Amino acid sequence: MPIELFTPSVQHALEVAGIFVFAISGALLAVRKNFDVFGMAVLAEVTALGGGVFRDLVIGAVPPIAFTDLGYFLTPLVATGIVFFLHPEVERITAAVGVFDAAGLGLFCVEGTMKAHDFGLGLTSSVTLGMATAVGGGVLRDLLAHEAPSLLRWDRDLYAVPAIVGSSIAALLLHFDALTAATSALAAAVAFVVRLAAMRFGWRAPRAWNRRSTATEEP
Amino acid sequence: MPIELFTPSVQHALEVAGIFVFAISGALLAVRKNFDVFGMAVLAEVTALGGGVFRDLVIGAVPPIAFTDLGYFLTPLVATGIVFFLHPEVERITAAVGVFDAAGLGLFCVEGTMKAHDFGLGLTSSVTLGMATAVGGGVLRDLLAHEAPSLLRWDRDLYAVPAIVGSSIAALLLHFDALTAATSALAAAVAFVVRLAAMRFGWRAPRAWNRRSTATEEP
Amino acid sequence: MPIELFTPSVQHALEVAGIFVFAISGALLAVRKNFDVFGMAVLAEVTALGGGVFRDLVIGAVPPIAFTDLGYFLTPLVATGIVFFLHPEVERITAAVGVFDAAGLGLFCVEGTMKAHDFGLGLTSSVTLGMATAVGGGVLRDLLAHEAPSLLRWDRDLYAVPAIVGSSIAALLLHFDALTAATSALAAAVAFVVRLAAMRFGWRAPRAWNRRSTATEEP
Repeated sequence: MPIELFTPSVQHALEVAGIFVFAISGALLAVRKNFDVFGMAVLAEVTALGGGVFRDLVIGAVPPIAFTDLGYFLTPLVATGIVFFLHPEVERITAAVGVFDAAGLGLFCVEGTMKAHDFGLGLTSSVTLGMATAVGGGVLRDLLAHEAPSLLRWDRDLYAVPAIVGSSIAALLLHFDALTAATSALAAAVAFVVRLAAMRFGWRAPRAWNRRSTATEEP
Repeated sequence: MPIELFTPSVQHALEVAGIFVFAISGALLAVRKNFDVFGMAVLAEVTALGGGVFRDLVIGAVPPIAFTDLGYFLTPLVATGIVFFLHPEVERITAAVGVFDAAGLGLFCVEGTMKAHDFGLGLTSSVTLGMATAVGGGVLRDLLAHEAPSLLRWDRDLYAVPAIVGSSIAALLLHFDALTAATSALAAAVAFVVRLAAMRFGWRAPRAWNRRSTATEEP
Repeated sequence: MPIELFTPSVQHALEVAGIFVFAISGALLAVRKNFDVFGMAVLAEVTALGGGVFRDLVIGAVPPIAFTDLGYFLTPLVATGIVFFLHPEVERITAAVGVFDAAGLGLFCVEGTMKAHDFGLGLTSSVTLGMATAVGGGVLRDLLAHEAPSLLRWDRDLYAVPAIVGSSIAALLLHFDALTAATSALAAAVAFVVRLAAMRFGWRAPRAWNRRSTATEEP
């Protein structure tokens, strides 16, 4: 029996919201790349569900939940329809989109960690797969859109680190047998807040040591 | 016992033909990208078999059939040899290649849908995986060749839609328990004809609504 | 019981060395692409472990060994740390890195072939997966770094061919039931030497026939 974050209905609403917002980011990138409506739907599905599919393949949970839960599959199509007709309006509320995206990030990194651990993986691997659940869809989105993965680039606010923080807290809770609905919700909330702070204050990860000190920070 | 389209020997001949033509498209792209003969073989294999490998990993049919049927593996190598020596001649018969590619598209989308359903997936997921079987290899081909996936681009004739049509007909037949050799062949034939029509008449999918109306169609 | 190349402790040391050097090549590419330290770690992990993860997913060995052996996971992080602080020094010893990379190539192609065969795959598929184990990580590294896969490019010294040679010798040994610690070590050594020779003498694979004869070799 998987542990639930929040109550089932609240968790389900948050999951659908997270999938929806991830899908929005995929569909918007497709518009920017001048893809057609079908390309928008593919990028929306891949962004929203790709990380979870990767996790499920690795842990042997086949078919992946994205292929067994119809709501998971249909939500990105709704997002595609909205972006198709209203993409200038959606572009204008990127701040709101960013907040929901951070919520999805927090939720999925904790869920992914818990599911990997349920399937018998060790804590380190569970943290890795929790992070991959949260960020994998965005990497696949960028690959399909023929762009360098935004996750890896230096000039973007921290994205993986909040996921690692959330996954690591979840793993510690698992290790100390302290994972309850409340504590797992707390882990997701910490990841959420760290991501919001990274966006608000422009936190970035360092680049390789000598390159940074000599090539870039000199005026 | 999987349902056969056509008689077994006819189906096998069509499958090999489909794999062969998909492989030709991969090898030709490798020539255009100036890859060496090994790169040609890799792109030929990936284009011909990548969609089926993805489907088999998702439904848990491991090892994927591409790794258990030697004919599936060797056919792309034959295609590579032909393109290696005769690529200018092969380029010249692209119309014929396009017709066989459309036949492969029709065949693989129906087969993929049936196989996913055989492994217990729902109808919507089976349609998705049928389409992925037919178009996945081409996406992987473009990723490895470092190009934006032709599947997603606006300025290409419909390719995924014929596959979705064929997969959806197959799923409807499964739903109404009406899938026979004849009806599944019909589903493949419809996908084939829709793809031929898309090529003949230049059918394309729309892009996002506001972009299309304001940015591009104005003179 | 898997057959061991060399003694267990020697094999383990070689494996860690191979993973380490593959990871170095990933982290160095990340530095060149101006990725941050997190991007370096991702590329290091993917380069070192991606080929094995692909092989394990295909043969159904889930979770892949990269997610169950902590040493496999931690070694690339050590490589990332070294490159982070010392990348100009590491760049300067590329000849040594190339020798260890060739050793990893030889070791992993033979290991991959043996593991695939252990899981019941035929000899041809085992050779394919042996090669994929050795070269797959590098392909994923290049995809994530948004570069054309160096494996497929014409203007690079032979890389896949040494792996195919090593995998094929291992498959022949399996076929004739002659695989022992000594003979499998020999197969790895042959792949190693072929790769060193390819680097030393600039061996390359031919491109498609007409292109080569008319377009490039004319002055």
